[in-house]
Amino acid sequence: MRAAVMYGAGDVRIEDRPDPKIQQPTDAVVRTVLSCVCGSDLWPYKSMPATDTGRPMGHEFLGVVEETGPQVTSVKPGDVVVTPFTYCDNTCDFCARGLHISCRHGGRYGLDGVEGGQGEAVRVPQADGTLVKLPVGADSAMLPSLLTLSDVMGTGHHGAVTAGVSRGDSVLVVGDGAVGLCAVIAARRLGAEQIILMGRHTDRTDLGREFGACEVVAERGEEGVARVRDLTGGDGIEKVIEAVGTRQALETAFGAVIDGGTVSRLGVPQYEEGPVGPSMIMRNITLTGGASPARAYIDELLPDVLDGSIDPGRVFDKSFSLDQVPDAYRSMADRRVLKALITL
Amino acid sequence: MRAAVMYGAGDVRIEDRPDPKIQQPTDAVVRTVLSCVCGSDLWPYKSMPATDTGRPMGHEFLGVVEETGPQVTSVKPGDVVVTPFTYCDNTCDFCARGLHISCRHGGRYGLDGVEGGQGEAVRVPQADGTLVKLPVGADSAMLPSLLTLSDVMGTGHHGAVTAGVSRGDSVLVVGDGAVGLCAVIAARRLGAEQIILMGRHTDRTDLGREFGACEVVAERGEEGVARVRDLTGGDGIEKVIEAVGTRQALETAFGAVIDGGTVSRLGVPQYEEGPVGPSMIMRNITLTGGASPARAYIDELLPDVLDGSIDPGRVFDKSFSLDQVPDAYRSMADRRVLKALITL
Repeated sequence: MRAAVMYGAGDVRIEDRPDPKIQQPTDAVVRTVLSCVCGSDLWPYKSMPATDTGRPMGHEFLGVVEETGPQVTSVKPGDVVVTPFTYCDNTCDFCARGLHISCRHGGRYGLDGVEGGQGEAVRVPQADGTLVKLPVGADSAMLPSLLTLSDVMGTGHHGAVTAGVSRGDSVLVVGDGAVGLCAVIAARRLGAEQIILMGRHTDRTDLGREFGACEVVAERGEEGVARVRDLTGGDGIEKVIEAVGTRQALETAFGAVIDGGTVSRLGVPQYEEGPVGPSMIMRNITLTGGASPARAYIDELLPDVLDGSIDPGRVFDKSFSLDQVPDAYRSMADRRVLKALITL
Repeated sequence: MRAAVMYGAGDVRIEDRPDPKIQQPTDAVVRTVLSCVCGSDLWPYKSMPATDTGRPMGHEFLGVVEETGPQVTSVKPGDVVVTPFTYCDNTCDFCARGLHISCRHGGRYGLDGVEGGQGEAVRVPQADGTLVKLPVGADSAMLPSLLTLSDVMGTGHHGAVTAGVSRGDSVLVVGDGAVGLCAVIAARRLGAEQIILMGRHTDRTDLGREFGACEVVAERGEEGVARVRDLTGGDGIEKVIEAVGTRQALETAFGAVIDGGTVSRLGVPQYEEGPVGPSMIMRNITLTGGASPARAYIDELLPDVLDGSIDPGRVFDKSFSLDQVPDAYRSMADRRVLKALITL
């Protein structure tokens, strides 16, 4: 089979790899139908040291089950399935607490002998716990929106959930990437009344408005903070979802949040140290969020995608074939594409 | 009147100051009966640059109302009252949210023309919002425990509340100072089943055991983390209350908390930057806590003090007269005294 492999910053190659096969009785092999490039894939694309062995890429995909191990009971060959961006048993104590990202038998795609999602097929460990059967055909027009349940929509939802968004809330979303836009969808879905989106790409913030943002703040840093405060009575905003991952975005979030408010982070931090000194304590700011337990949210979000209540697939603004994946990375890194869909 | 004034690190003096008088119609003047030294007073005691003007010290006190402004209705001369460690109107939107520490008309003792609590009398702004009348006489044996409602008990309670402690929980308290010990009381009061106390002063941890700690961990750093993990099944503990304020204590808290768990900070951070990088995100750790809205908790905690359900006054292990306040600071800084009571 063919798959995308990263060999270093800016160096993504499509190459032949052995076809994935069942190794454990709990495995399934899924033939990929749709995959995509994640904002988090861009960090190694910018900074990964060159390597000879390469790293299979991609952790968001849906496809058709090709084969299952003898212990797999919840899916069968021919089923159309989506995976959360990490696999999990969905039975351990962490999964039972809704923290599938920390599953005792879980792991990440592209590591430990498991292929990435940006390829023709993947062996999925813990298939019963991981895969969710979709009640659509492999040619459904809904597939892009269903694919977002793999990561980006579940991640945006995690931000809204951990920020404690509820009916009538004011919410700031920092970042107009695909995660930020899905956070807007999620905040709206949970009943937020005032959603402010910080971003500078008009095409993206326009989509954010369609998703439910009431206001767009293009300014950054202190100016952006001042603008958010202007829009919210001067004291800051109760709930902030930080969907970028830079130190500046975190500082903006702290600057914009009201005393006693919550900052929920979704972006992978591109920093090790953050400003959590006396000011955060005196202002009673809570810092929460994290890597989304995407599996936990699929059951909740799936009906809303199927009935069209939410349409997160609109974050995909360009489609690429597997051969074009290197271009998909370049296009996203250059901000020419919001989120690249990969069709297989 | 006479009061304690700090002129620099290690330099606390008792001096004559003008008697506080009513300045605003919402003021009350309180004649101090009991005060104490706070752990947070020790930070300037260690590091305050020398100054000619000095800073009146103390923010925890109870006493007898001497005079009230014409708009004060909730207390009258002769009432025995306790104050939270910041004054507040108890009516603004922040107070209504339970965040009295951020009150729009609030402020701190020892600043802005308001005396500190370590003196014979204090003008209390926003008296109706700030002061709580105590149903005891000025000679009650309960006064030390009632004094803790001013700060230390409310602060420990804030840690337990913001950590989300509830029935059956496992809770780690980092730090065997008076705040940590009150956090043990608070965690027990909220139903925690397993309370682990980290501290190295046997007299303090013994008191912590009496307050409800099941286990004491004397080790620090990685050893301490390993010990907590041993005591909790290996994965860490759900809720951590950090009651020290050092960088090491924060790192210990992060090390000991389980994925998806909560670290609540109470100690004033003696650092500006903290380890909130990718690991915190991947583990879904929440960092919360802050300066306690002590006023918010007095109504809830007062009945438990009055009926003897909790006895937080036991954190006072030595009593000092006003003239002995410099020695009280020294004794606490040298760790010879856990928490110094000041009798006036």
